[in-house]
Amino acid sequence: MDRSAEFRRWKAQCLSKADLSLKGSVDEDVAEIVQLLNGQEQFFTTSSCSGRIILIDGSINGFEVQKQNCRWLLVTHKPCTKDDVIVALRNANGDAVLKFEPLVLHVQCRQLQDAQILHSVAIDSGFRNSGITVGKRGKTMLAVRSTHGLEVPLSHEGKLMVTEDYIDFLLKIANQKMEENRKRIERFYSCLQHALERQSIIRSYPKEKVNKKINAYSPKKKRNQEKARDRCIAEENDKELENNDSPGISAAVFPEDDEDLVLTCLW
Amino acid sequence: MDRSAEFRRWKAQCLSKADLSLKGSVDEDVAEIVQLLNGQEQFFTTSSCSGRIILIDGSINGFEVQKQNCRWLLVTHKPCTKDDVIVALRNANGDAVLKFEPLVLHVQCRQLQDAQILHSVAIDSGFRNSGITVGKRGKTMLAVRSTHGLEVPLSHEGKLMVTEDYIDFLLKIANQKMEENRKRIERFYSCLQHALERQSIIRSYPKEKVNKKINAYSPKKKRNQEKARDRCIAEENDKELENNDSPGISAAVFPEDDEDLVLTCLW
Repeated sequence: MDRSAEFRRWKAQCLSKADLSLKGSVDEDVAEIVQLLNGQEQFFTTSSCSGRIILIDGSINGFEVQKQNCRWLLVTHKPCTKDDVIVALRNANGDAVLKFEPLVLHVQCRQLQDAQILHSVAIDSGFRNSGITVGKRGKTMLAVRSTHGLEVPLSHEGKLMVTEDYIDFLLKIANQKMEENRKRIERFYSCLQHALERQSIIRSYPKEKVNKKINAYSPKKKRNQEKARDRCIAEENDKELENNDSPGISAAVFPEDDEDLVLTCLW
Repeated sequence: MDRSAEFRRWKAQCLSKADLSLKGSVDEDVAEIVQLLNGQEQFFTTSSCSGRIILIDGSINGFEVQKQNCRWLLVTHKPCTKDDVIVALRNANGDAVLKFEPLVLHVQCRQLQDAQILHSVAIDSGFRNSGITVGKRGKTMLAVRSTHGLEVPLSHEGKLMVTEDYIDFLLKIANQKMEENRKRIERFYSCLQHALERQSIIRSYPKEKVNKKINAYSPKKKRNQEKARDRCIAEENDKELENNDSPGISAAVFPEDDEDLVLTCLW
């Protein structure tokens, strides 16, 4: 079976299956993107989480939270208050940790070129820890990831280690990160629309007409990318040295990295 | 110029340049891996940081740390004490945040297949946020990333928001994460050696002899991978749904994700 036919089979099989998550539905904030991607012949989503604030109670082994023994005290995809956390903390008897986890989206792509386009969209939108996985049988997946997290231990063996004022302060930061994550999801949707328009023109017009048509889109797309990139540089928080081959991926080293990120090459 | 020649040119250019980081040298804990990779014709490293505990004093804009206005109060690639942090915090007048950042390694690869092999090594060693970037001109890069971080706001507008006991508790966790990161780096080195041995056999033996030779390596490699994977599943902390095409990448959803990670497909 050729690659395209195999991909269509995978996609049909995949989308015909029931949603196996306990929640059983796509998170509201990411539903539009999932729908847009699954409507394209070259993509389908295999998992998504729009971003969440979670409080987990871990049983600790040498300060390493053992996932299999974790209890979930709180999970929300919307902003939450100090009181939500304080109430949930009453059930903690291990080491409770509050986390903000940004969007994670997994998209299977028909071919590497499709994954490259989607990767550029993700980077331009601020999801700078995104990356491609290519399996042995050629299964090509893009993981959309941000660096925009928070992980804060709050209690040890059931004993709260911080004040209520601190939890209030922390929740303001977590909610702010959730809001920023929501903006990046919107940016992702808009960048994705432009990229798909661009691709459909490339596919449907004779070569000599393509540049003209694309140029009609480029300024807006370019502006969006530049806006997105400027925001990324101000907001992102990773240690990524980037590949200037891809749109929106510059060779800049972040200010925080100048100090000790080891570089053997810049281009 | 063919791809291989172009890659050799990039590599020569890159490795002939001075280390542009302020530190000016490769971090001790990752030096062996950098040396091993740069000794292979199909790889060269473009940046690395072995992992670090940092304390940054951010000027806050709507709770968003503006990197360009950050001051570095503390950076260490070794475990550190409560007192190191308390002394450094005396210089904080903005919003100080303590972070543990695990290994980040960027490796340019001659071709996609080389990146796939290195990606599997990274996943098997516990660096589960690793991913491939392929640029428009075919420049292929693997970013080795872990999910094993910590990000804890400590002060707001110069005011300390936590107790010294909490900082002590937090540093124990940060140091534990640094130790776990060091173990993963060792695992990465050992998995990489096995993968390279395996590849050199594949390249240098006639096809009919390869399987026999490889099988001589497989049990040990498989044991390493399984050990690595078991440790990963116990220790990792991300929201990755994985691609069962790659060794060490199973289709399992982590316990923490059953609750609300949206799945439209499992294979």
